[in-house]
Amino acid sequence: MPVDPIPAATDLELSGEQFADLIGEVTARLREHIDSLPDQPSWNTEHFEQVVDSYDLEIGRGERSFTELMDYLFETAIPCSFNTASPGYLAYIPAGGLLQSAAADLISTATNRYMGVWAAAPLLANIEQAVIRWFCQLFGLPDSSGGILTSGGSLANWTAMVAARTRLLGEEFLDGVLYCSDQAHHCVEKAARLCGIKRANVKLIGTDDQFRMDVAQLEAEIEKDKAAGLRPFFVAANAGSTNSGAVDPLEELAQVCQESGIWLHVDAAYGGFFVMTERGRRTLKGIDQADSIVIDPHKSLFLPYGTGALVVRSVKDLSDANRIDADYMPDYQDDQDKTDFHEISPELSREFRGLRVWLPLQMHGAQAFEDNLNEKLDLTDWIYERLKNLNSPRSSVEIVAEPQLSIFAFRVRFQCDDHLLDDWNRELMKRVNARKRVYLTGTLLNGQFVIRICVLSFRTHLDRIKECYAAIVEEIGDIEKILLQQRQGTVS
Amino acid sequence: MPVDPIPAATDLELSGEQFADLIGEVTARLREHIDSLPDQPSWNTEHFEQVVDSYDLEIGRGERSFTELMDYLFETAIPCSFNTASPGYLAYIPAGGLLQSAAADLISTATNRYMGVWAAAPLLANIEQAVIRWFCQLFGLPDSSGGILTSGGSLANWTAMVAARTRLLGEEFLDGVLYCSDQAHHCVEKAARLCGIKRANVKLIGTDDQFRMDVAQLEAEIEKDKAAGLRPFFVAANAGSTNSGAVDPLEELAQVCQESGIWLHVDAAYGGFFVMTERGRRTLKGIDQADSIVIDPHKSLFLPYGTGALVVRSVKDLSDANRIDADYMPDYQDDQDKTDFHEISPELSREFRGLRVWLPLQMHGAQAFEDNLNEKLDLTDWIYERLKNLNSPRSSVEIVAEPQLSIFAFRVRFQCDDHLLDDWNRELMKRVNARKRVYLTGTLLNGQFVIRICVLSFRTHLDRIKECYAAIVEEIGDIEKILLQQRQGTVS
Repeated sequence: MPVDPIPAATDLELSGEQFADLIGEVTARLREHIDSLPDQPSWNTEHFEQVVDSYDLEIGRGERSFTELMDYLFETAIPCSFNTASPGYLAYIPAGGLLQSAAADLISTATNRYMGVWAAAPLLANIEQAVIRWFCQLFGLPDSSGGILTSGGSLANWTAMVAARTRLLGEEFLDGVLYCSDQAHHCVEKAARLCGIKRANVKLIGTDDQFRMDVAQLEAEIEKDKAAGLRPFFVAANAGSTNSGAVDPLEELAQVCQESGIWLHVDAAYGGFFVMTERGRRTLKGIDQADSIVIDPHKSLFLPYGTGALVVRSVKDLSDANRIDADYMPDYQDDQDKTDFHEISPELSREFRGLRVWLPLQMHGAQAFEDNLNEKLDLTDWIYERLKNLNSPRSSVEIVAEPQLSIFAFRVRFQCDDHLLDDWNRELMKRVNARKRVYLTGTLLNGQFVIRICVLSFRTHLDRIKECYAAIVEEIGDIEKILLQQRQGTVS
Repeated sequence: MPVDPIPAATDLELSGEQFADLIGEVTARLREHIDSLPDQPSWNTEHFEQVVDSYDLEIGRGERSFTELMDYLFETAIPCSFNTASPGYLAYIPAGGLLQSAAADLISTATNRYMGVWAAAPLLANIEQAVIRWFCQLFGLPDSSGGILTSGGSLANWTAMVAARTRLLGEEFLDGVLYCSDQAHHCVEKAARLCGIKRANVKLIGTDDQFRMDVAQLEAEIEKDKAAGLRPFFVAANAGSTNSGAVDPLEELAQVCQESGIWLHVDAAYGGFFVMTERGRRTLKGIDQADSIVIDPHKSLFLPYGTGALVVRSVKDLSDANRIDADYMPDYQDDQDKTDFHEISPELSREFRGLRVWLPLQMHGAQAFEDNLNEKLDLTDWIYERLKNLNSPRSSVEIVAEPQLSIFAFRVRFQCDDHLLDDWNRELMKRVNARKRVYLTGTLLNGQFVIRICVLSFRTHLDRIKECYAAIVEEIGDIEKILLQQRQGTVS
């Protein structure tokens, strides 16, 4: 028999006091970090090559003091990044990252309860379920609805697709066809591949002058595919495309889908929570007809990265696609109020995501979120209206994508050869970003480079938007001068 | 044009000081929570019905004070649970939840950097990559290897399956066949469904008397399926099954797979990190031959829930299955040292999982983890040897699953009708659990109810294992008495 006593390996254990000390040291650093956010550069990744080699990241070599590790993280590693928490971050889709959610995560992670199975932590599972119910209500979904929290939009889109495939196509699904606009997020195409849909059966539908799906073209494609013996089963509509902020005509799409027995999915990862605002409800009209909706609380609900969501019209579709029994698991809960999340989700063990959504909403109420979203719409309008009307004798601003929610895209028509316009707009963005007060990113629309502005952080207010506008105006002026000198040089 | 000024919506913003106050309140609660862990009940879910209705979980009704919310969480919601953080938690697969990882998460969530794309936070992405490289080294995988962190084992298993399907079957994959033992975790079958593999093409292979896959039966099935024109492509082996802790014969399976061009996947979600120990390496021999391995740091690396991992022999298989380009994304990094995680993973935006693995390993070194795992193996042996030899004139213990790592399963042969043995073993487990000093769960093996013991928390030491043993011995004695009285009652 094994020797008794067996020595206890206690190296990894912390007493309450030791834990409080660690958290105290982290909090002191974070406090400084938070207060300096307005002055921090909006991005800071150009010099990392100099630091990366000087720090040994390898594991297992020995032990480092907590202070040394914090020094590396807070002084070197974290600052070397796109500053996604900065009020000047107007790039991609900003997240901001509510600090209240960090407090929630601290609770969840340190207490480490398991809520994938309702019986294991019923009241915590109920908190997550309260969040899901609120989401369903926001979108006007019926009582049959339900959903899950995910790590982000990609897996949420995929989960919806698997549910639709399971319900509408069954096991012999290689004749299934899926439609999205040419502006859909690339994770829709990726989800289709992961799901096993053939590449040729992912049909990109053209868009109108504001990058919204062309419904007539969609209908024609559906008819053509049906005639060819294929099975159209899924339309993935945008409710705020990443590229240009486009919201597809949801009401019309709902009608087309209903007539053809097709699952209407709405990728509202970016735009979804604008449904809390009056303007958003107008823009997103028809979203209540969807079979499934993806929303990312880590986007338009301002949460930290790692919180996406999928809601579906009929939660049974999720359990039909995801439920499997096992001997070693607790019994399933048949009561609809007792949600076994793993039964309706592809995940089993995973972090407790509900608290980080629920806590800030309980602390501040939903109105605070609505107010913030309205401010983002106002700020977008503010800079859009000014840029649209920004014309000089030597350049004019072309709005390529109008703001439908809080994203728009523009390019400047400088006086130069057309084939150089992309380069000069890239140069403009580079110059604005070089000031490190805002961070903008570009994309291609109609094959041309455009500069995007996406206003979504709860930390972004008018002062920063004015700075952004002033920087654009000044840099346009400087580029105009360079172009003028070039022309004069050519002439002289 | 919009009115200027636009009022700033600042309700959701916290100053550094306000944030520190929140975290201070949370930490004070957690400190008490941590210090009381040894005295907390090992589970506490029987009275929740009385509390669940008294607290309004709904969102949007108004604002609550932080203190009120903390009261509800710490006094009501969190304690009402299986105490997965308790040293007495020997149920399912314990996680424990290292508190150092909670400190790491606080940093990640509050600074909210984006590391799905290497360019956005190169040094943070490198931290995650250092974790992955260390995992690959632990398993002796070649330089071509790589991997990702996931939320848990389910999505990691599925991601491996998609990679195998993509490489070996292509788009017309409905003739693909997948094999696992009848002891495989149900998430393997679930992953297959999500992946689009037909139910009939998921073949459960029988197991030997210690629940290890029968290799001869596997070979026969593969030959039969090939002869039927199907395409065997994937064997999912257990390296520590959830049910019984069984480790399939990995070396033999590797040979079979190599001969047939089949992808060998090892689900080592529970058992993987035992490879750090000498005993574990013996048991897991052959795991270095796998094409993919799932490991859950939130199991045998003691982390909090929400950290799984997949490592693959050739990281190219992951990028072939997951990479899609988009105009609005930063350029991919072709340098192998600059990892764009979204390129090799189904996720794009998600939380920064690397820090919660890396930080405790840097603080304590790998040896501390190895020591803890060795202690768990010793503790398992300790109680196993004693239970195995526990015989009285009125009962004997039957070890149904021997410990291969730190799980074993047993049942007591009481003097009663055979058809009542399941009930009496359920009763035994219920009585042991009712003391709330440990928490055990059961399962079915060979169609019979067995009690499982899984020793895996870093907080579990010999004192608690002795308490567990004493409780089992005493409760067996009490049940013997009841049975004796029943028999005497029947006779009299």
